[in-house]
Amino acid sequence: MEKLEALKRLFPGKVDLSESERLRHGKDEGYPEARPVLAVVYPEGVEDVQKALRWAREWGVAVIPFGAGTSLEGHLYPVREAISLDLSRMNRVLEVRPQDFSCVVEPGLTRKALNQALKGTGLFFPVDPGADASLGGMAATNASGTTTVRYGGMRQNVLALQVVLASGEVLELGRGVRKTSSGYDLKDLFIGSEGTLGVITRLTLRLHPLPEHVHTLRVFFPGVEEAAEASYRIMASGLPVARLELLDELAMRALNRYLKAGFPERPALFLEFHASTKEALEAERASALELVREAGALEVEAATTEEERRRQWEARHQAYWALVHLFPGHRFLITDTAVPLSRLPEMVRFAQGLLREMGLTGNILGHVGDGNFHTLIPVLLEDYPKAEAYAERLVEKALELGGTCTAEHGVGLRKRKFLPKEHGPALEWMRRLKALFDPEGLLNPGKVV
Amino acid sequence: MEKLEALKRLFPGKVDLSESERLRHGKDEGYPEARPVLAVVYPEGVEDVQKALRWAREWGVAVIPFGAGTSLEGHLYPVREAISLDLSRMNRVLEVRPQDFSCVVEPGLTRKALNQALKGTGLFFPVDPGADASLGGMAATNASGTTTVRYGGMRQNVLALQVVLASGEVLELGRGVRKTSSGYDLKDLFIGSEGTLGVITRLTLRLHPLPEHVHTLRVFFPGVEEAAEASYRIMASGLPVARLELLDELAMRALNRYLKAGFPERPALFLEFHASTKEALEAERASALELVREAGALEVEAATTEEERRRQWEARHQAYWALVHLFPGHRFLITDTAVPLSRLPEMVRFAQGLLREMGLTGNILGHVGDGNFHTLIPVLLEDYPKAEAYAERLVEKALELGGTCTAEHGVGLRKRKFLPKEHGPALEWMRRLKALFDPEGLLNPGKVV
Repeated sequence: MEKLEALKRLFPGKVDLSESERLRHGKDEGYPEARPVLAVVYPEGVEDVQKALRWAREWGVAVIPFGAGTSLEGHLYPVREAISLDLSRMNRVLEVRPQDFSCVVEPGLTRKALNQALKGTGLFFPVDPGADASLGGMAATNASGTTTVRYGGMRQNVLALQVVLASGEVLELGRGVRKTSSGYDLKDLFIGSEGTLGVITRLTLRLHPLPEHVHTLRVFFPGVEEAAEASYRIMASGLPVARLELLDELAMRALNRYLKAGFPERPALFLEFHASTKEALEAERASALELVREAGALEVEAATTEEERRRQWEARHQAYWALVHLFPGHRFLITDTAVPLSRLPEMVRFAQGLLREMGLTGNILGHVGDGNFHTLIPVLLEDYPKAEAYAERLVEKALELGGTCTAEHGVGLRKRKFLPKEHGPALEWMRRLKALFDPEGLLNPGKVV
Repeated sequence: MEKLEALKRLFPGKVDLSESERLRHGKDEGYPEARPVLAVVYPEGVEDVQKALRWAREWGVAVIPFGAGTSLEGHLYPVREAISLDLSRMNRVLEVRPQDFSCVVEPGLTRKALNQALKGTGLFFPVDPGADASLGGMAATNASGTTTVRYGGMRQNVLALQVVLASGEVLELGRGVRKTSSGYDLKDLFIGSEGTLGVITRLTLRLHPLPEHVHTLRVFFPGVEEAAEASYRIMASGLPVARLELLDELAMRALNRYLKAGFPERPALFLEFHASTKEALEAERASALELVREAGALEVEAATTEEERRRQWEARHQAYWALVHLFPGHRFLITDTAVPLSRLPEMVRFAQGLLREMGLTGNILGHVGDGNFHTLIPVLLEDYPKAEAYAERLVEKALELGGTCTAEHGVGLRKRKFLPKEHGPALEWMRRLKALFDPEGLLNPGKVV
């Protein structure tokens, strides 16, 4: 094809046309369908991104930015002819400013690689979605995770962005300061826009001092409702909890099998406290213990070494893979609602009841300190529509309770249908913004709006 | 005038045409000029706001939303024929949801009235700009203040907004949950838009548990640079400081005179720690004391009673009025830059040196934990241009250091000229957004973009 010849001429050594790569770039980790992109382009700098967009305008081909491929809602699936802009070669740490608690990075850098690069500075980047996602991708979906209850998600930890618009224009959004009231907040408009308004080519991130003292607990309960209640009490106490994760019985069982661990097979809260003094930590731990016992905790285990702590959170992040291991040959669907904190126990009860009602297996786990949890549902291919029906009813319930259809995974293709109900007339204005920034509809078409 | 007759017919008992009210609504607390608006309208609900906008479209008259009139950068000055939409009658607390840590309020409610209404719930709304501003106005300027270092500013504490567009359309933006990745972030686009994109008619706010233990300190230093250095060390330590305010020697002297107080007349840091346990508080206080002593603190005073604590922060908030009292017959200009944390000592040094160089008096105080401080400059009328020249040079320096022209006061009229330098080509896109939401330019024209 003439356009592919032109692309190869433009990007010598930076285009991959192999079937396997084209297919790998047309799928993500959570959407059931995949479809090859036309070509994969590996830009090495902002000029390459501009060049790719010029080519796209010329040939009328869409562009889908690609980070680490860990998104879940169909973000990477090409609904029409598209190239994938794989940013993995733009993965440099451009600058670390320890005294400003900030750094400047390229979008293809992953969060683990960043924290590796920060070793020795006394600082870390807290946003932790589990997967070793790219920081550009995390900004694009407004990702969050286990530490968000204390440190916020991407929106709170991205100070500034460089983006390339569909027109090729380069904009600098936001500023590397802790606060500003200068002009309209375009930075936050692009965070969570999932590559539909522009391509993120640089990020200025906020860093945090590594906590000097850390305490990690596992608390086990007779049921998930007691666990949800305990989580609510901890939030209400004002204790500066840094992680507050729920894992249900099935999740614990799957983890034991997968990791050959010996956790009690009961609904659990995994907690962590960060403090700058030992005494503060001790006191907060004691208060937390009192609260969870009042809420009906059966058993408490403390991680006593750094290694055990690491293993505990590794286990939390392996919960998905543990389930995959427990259900070979299955597909997996992951829900992502959030509700106001007081509605969490009701929402958890509903999620469990609906699994039973629909004859589905699923585990419930997530960031309950933020009112957000996931149901992970393993199904055989023929039952996938049933899992989708479950996910839909969960969203409807969340919206009914004043919640959101997606707390941290983003809209992609799969959540689009819920946006009219969640946003009402505001959705039409989102579409107008899309048309303003990308009038030809070249940037990740069919997603979000 | 026919249009005024129409306005009065539309709003019986809700229009004020008196000279004094028209003038009061055409000025703010920091801009040197004032000009009467055409009329003041007092809407009592969202339908009234829609009606006023319909009238404005019909007659081609601009609309300036008005909260408590405490803005500082000319936000309320009518650059062309305009009515003032005074939202002070829309001042109800619509709902408090203690178990969700949130509440729903009307825009004319002030922050002090809200905290009064929250008494007994164990919760508070932390954003504290000093003035008893309206919550709608605070969202419109993305206000922040003394507690922002710990709790964030308006952007982090407004979960959702109801706004009326120039067209009269009512939008619901954001969601009453702790996190969401659902669609483009229009909520944050309207926060900080200073009434130029729409009129805020309802806010869902995030509330925080009242800290069980509070400790308040005043630490005095030989010079402001040592104080700035100490503030940096506290931030780097990761200590969970809740307030970290710098006041220079002149500010302390003015406070002593105004409040008949006996503070040492030296540069000071006013600090506060919030903790949920007594032991944590003690340990954090001890660490902080060690840090400030290492940085050269001369003297430390602790507020031992609730009353003394209240007086200390009252004093901090009176710093402006104390200076006004010390310089009768003067005008006052307040700067509002922020820089990356590491540049704060350099910025403070520059601000002080420039005062001397230009033969101006001024005090320096502010939210140094966020890299933000204000210079308050008293000048006689004929010297006002000199103060403005000072403010301009301060902004230029801040931008040069990677900072922002306004950390929390907003753009209004006065900061507009700095936006091209701070935002580059992004400014043109801000203007396009303005044209999209308000094609006839009816909403607070001449401000921000």
